[in-house]
Amino acid sequence: MTDYKPIPTEFEGESLESAWLPVPGVQSAPSVLIFPTVMGVTDLELGFGAKLNAKGYSALVGDLFGKKFHGAPRDTMFGELNRLKGDRAALRRRVIHLFETMQAQDGSESQRTAAIGFCFGGLCALDLARSGTQLDGVASFHGLFDPPGLPPEKIKPKVIAFHGWDDPMVKPDAVEALARELTDAGADWQIHAYGHVGHGFTNPNASSEIGIPGVQYNELAAKRSWANLELFLGELFGE
Amino acid sequence: MTDYKPIPTEFEGESLESAWLPVPGVQSAPSVLIFPTVMGVTDLELGFGAKLNAKGYSALVGDLFGKKFHGAPRDTMFGELNRLKGDRAALRRRVIHLFETMQAQDGSESQRTAAIGFCFGGLCALDLARSGTQLDGVASFHGLFDPPGLPPEKIKPKVIAFHGWDDPMVKPDAVEALARELTDAGADWQIHAYGHVGHGFTNPNASSEIGIPGVQYNELAAKRSWANLELFLGELFGE
Repeated sequence: MTDYKPIPTEFEGESLESAWLPVPGVQSAPSVLIFPTVMGVTDLELGFGAKLNAKGYSALVGDLFGKKFHGAPRDTMFGELNRLKGDRAALRRRVIHLFETMQAQDGSESQRTAAIGFCFGGLCALDLARSGTQLDGVASFHGLFDPPGLPPEKIKPKVIAFHGWDDPMVKPDAVEALARELTDAGADWQIHAYGHVGHGFTNPNASSEIGIPGVQYNELAAKRSWANLELFLGELFGE
Repeated sequence: MTDYKPIPTEFEGESLESAWLPVPGVQSAPSVLIFPTVMGVTDLELGFGAKLNAKGYSALVGDLFGKKFHGAPRDTMFGELNRLKGDRAALRRRVIHLFETMQAQDGSESQRTAAIGFCFGGLCALDLARSGTQLDGVASFHGLFDPPGLPPEKIKPKVIAFHGWDDPMVKPDAVEALARELTDAGADWQIHAYGHVGHGFTNPNASSEIGIPGVQYNELAAKRSWANLELFLGELFGE
């Protein structure tokens, strides 16, 4: 189990509880917001936070779904995902709320920030970039690319997306559409595509947790994408 | 100027002169074949060879065009490119000849090998993979993706392609087609796409040498792709 500090916040009448992982022994560090998969705040995301700590970055695992859904079963969580995804303007407010929650923490450098996300959380990381928010970078791991259907803003952070080419939820057309969208929004962007890789490739339990064909861990893609996240954060924060 | 050993060979009646850059002071090292741009063996490719030496890899800059074209003007070289590209079966024999030339050098580990290429040389690196040749990996930098129109072989090396999304010579359709081709051929593949980046992005003199809109150096893409080449070679050769 990874140690963290619970961060309760209220968002539009819902009680959220994010997890704060500052870098031990330093006053402040560049900070990375982690948007979780559809399963919410789990050991997977806390583990990613600990890996970021080891590289000198503080991390907030943002509670997208609310405290009452911690540990809820898959079908409940998919219902909540569809609810949040059904109102992208509200989702935008929610991701900004979590971003500002991170900026407010002791141990966070509020002006050196990034956001990363996994599956639905990848969409949330992109939506934070799409909101016009000022941050240094966002990274999506096997994220959904669906455009928000909101007036486009200039995208300020650098964007990187790690994508399994055989992802059953994100087809080649969606990759091209994201490339066009990011280009039009003026973003510095990269998309890294992996052959013979599906959805959920960073999650060792993807197959058993999600139980959908094409959703599966891929050790090599997990390793390659994480190595590139470290390069990306190094580029952003000068380490 | 980078030091190298000239390696003259004969290929189907033409005199080639490749450049061999072994790692100084070691008996043998994993070896990387470098396929040059349309301009042939130049300081650009010799410089890449020296960078590979510094990482512990020997390098052969392969002479695709022949000794008599060393230093030839752009228009002559484009004519030669079209000649070589017009017969992909002969081009396949040519890239295999250069690969075997590298394997035969003192200081080359003939069973730990990779090939990289730039622009037309990227196509040559892919064509070496497409030939069914056994090597560990190939990397294409702003390479052409045109399929060879030859019977498909199983692709044995790992493949990575660094691609500028605004490359006027390689459109999104060609990226999708390469992804399909590599998937069908069973390759472990990655494509890294960069936004707002054109053709020739690794070459500081791309714009003045080639003089075609959309062909331009991009320092960030050059840096990102080279960092990933080093990760890729580390994955192949266990460093």
